[in-house]
Amino acid sequence: MPVDDSGPSRLSDVGEDGLLRLIFPRLPVAAATLLGPGDDTAVVAAPDGRVVATTDVLVEGRDFRRDWSSAPDVGWKAAAQNLADVAAMGAVPTALLVGLVAPPELEVAWALGLADGLAAACAGTGAGVVGGDLSSGPVIVVSVTALGDLQGRAPVLRSGARPGDVVAVAGALGRSGAGWELLELGRGDVAPELVAAHRRPTPPYAAGVAAAVAGATSMLDVSDGLVRDLGRVARASGVTIDLDWNLAADAFARPLWPANTALGRPETDAMRWVLGGGEDHALAATFPPGVEPPVGFVPVGEVLPRVIGRPDVLLDGEPLDTLGWDHFRP
Amino acid sequence: MPVDDSGPSRLSDVGEDGLLRLIFPRLPVAAATLLGPGDDTAVVAAPDGRVVATTDVLVEGRDFRRDWSSAPDVGWKAAAQNLADVAAMGAVPTALLVGLVAPPELEVAWALGLADGLAAACAGTGAGVVGGDLSSGPVIVVSVTALGDLQGRAPVLRSGARPGDVVAVAGALGRSGAGWELLELGRGDVAPELVAAHRRPTPPYAAGVAAAVAGATSMLDVSDGLVRDLGRVARASGVTIDLDWNLAADAFARPLWPANTALGRPETDAMRWVLGGGEDHALAATFPPGVEPPVGFVPVGEVLPRVIGRPDVLLDGEPLDTLGWDHFRP
Repeated sequence: MPVDDSGPSRLSDVGEDGLLRLIFPRLPVAAATLLGPGDDTAVVAAPDGRVVATTDVLVEGRDFRRDWSSAPDVGWKAAAQNLADVAAMGAVPTALLVGLVAPPELEVAWALGLADGLAAACAGTGAGVVGGDLSSGPVIVVSVTALGDLQGRAPVLRSGARPGDVVAVAGALGRSGAGWELLELGRGDVAPELVAAHRRPTPPYAAGVAAAVAGATSMLDVSDGLVRDLGRVARASGVTIDLDWNLAADAFARPLWPANTALGRPETDAMRWVLGGGEDHALAATFPPGVEPPVGFVPVGEVLPRVIGRPDVLLDGEPLDTLGWDHFRP
Repeated sequence: MPVDDSGPSRLSDVGEDGLLRLIFPRLPVAAATLLGPGDDTAVVAAPDGRVVATTDVLVEGRDFRRDWSSAPDVGWKAAAQNLADVAAMGAVPTALLVGLVAPPELEVAWALGLADGLAAACAGTGAGVVGGDLSSGPVIVVSVTALGDLQGRAPVLRSGARPGDVVAVAGALGRSGAGWELLELGRGDVAPELVAAHRRPTPPYAAGVAAAVAGATSMLDVSDGLVRDLGRVARASGVTIDLDWNLAADAFARPLWPANTALGRPETDAMRWVLGGGEDHALAATFPPGVEPPVGFVPVGEVLPRVIGRPDVLLDGEPLDTLGWDHFRP
């Protein structure tokens, strides 16, 4: 059914098949796509003989707000957070499958914008959209599954960090959290670039493969905040991680000082965004002594033997709560 | 956080991490699971060097009703309909990824029941649950992605049917649709086994591989009704499909006569369920002349050269609408 240009078309006007016909041409096709949408399943190349697979669900009102993020923003974010998970294993993404639940009265333009955002986030990553499903419901739900190829490498797990390793981060920390807080305070004008970082995180995909090639002992996607996520590495690896305030502040907090100051807060408060802010989808990895972290990785701490009776993650050797950072306890 | 046995625990009582800890032990682990839940991604064996992938979203109120289907029923159905898509390519399932959106006040027991249903549907298929995601929302949404392995075979597409091929169906037709209508009419007592078939479809997974090995030229999962789905094969293949009333009636309508009669309808009405009922997830395939359809497949028609100006699917050589079956027009 053709879209009527005289007014906003709704999903209920074009129907499921009609919407799919409009969406498919907007979605990227990748080299690994052996069979795209239209049959019972897609067929995706898995040259390694193993496939990495991850899934995330984004719900309107909880994971995104339509008044804060455009449809392309939501599509971008849904793709990026899954592609970052693939990168965090040291794999390259090959394919996305996307489920969309939407109210029948949703404008078709929103669904097409979502597809455009998915496509934009995939550009340059090697991933294509190979399949999907549509259904209707009271709020928008976007589910994304990402597949990837390990190219012959061992997956980089959370459990491999060893005492003496350097902890390093590639990508952004605190920018998305700061942007979110600015939106929450109605002060997006203070730093539009941080609001943009919240709307469209840019995970350092290539750094994931580089870290795996360099010999990273552990790696993960920082989605819930640095301290919380490094706590997962520490517990999986049976170690303690000690962050270095100066290193983290220089690399990640200093660029946030102007926004922090504009809110009338003391300079050190910018570190809250760095330690606790999620959704930047940086990659945090550990590298053995003598291994130079690849370009793009900034050292932020070191791995200690597990310290019994203390938190999994320390800051300059001290528990974060005794430093007044109890909000960030993992 | 332990579950309090003194009353129904809600999702909000146990939190996301708590729920995951309760769910994971209930989920099946399969031979292809190289790395299960707990890291950024799962790692799944793809020995063929290609992976088939499909996704479906089920929404409460649209795709299932909690008063008609138990949590294990919903989990079963969500898994089965994706596993059937994998089988319809001639592949064997290896892994499922599951997203669950649920209201915070949902009972934990419901989520655990969902996991049990997923596990039950996977049993014997070779598939395990390798990953997932949880979020909250106003209604329950279950998204399932299934992966599978082609074991060196070419995928069986919808586009390969050729004139002269036999059309055959493995599995059930009309049972789920009949069960749904009985529930809708409040007459589930008439045929509890049909209601059960609606709640827990049993796709003939092994028949998918058998059809591929035998040389099926096309295949698909019958999810939206036989006529509608065969119309997709006909269009993709550039052919017309002619169904044989007697063959279809003998194999699939006759067992539905008692339920149909109990509703006071003429005998021939049972064919409505067979031709139009969805969600049984039978497999419909075409086989070249001289190839014996594998055990489990029942011939129901033949493939004709494309008949210009006529519907894609005929019944005994006639358009279904001129026979009074216009509801089933593809």
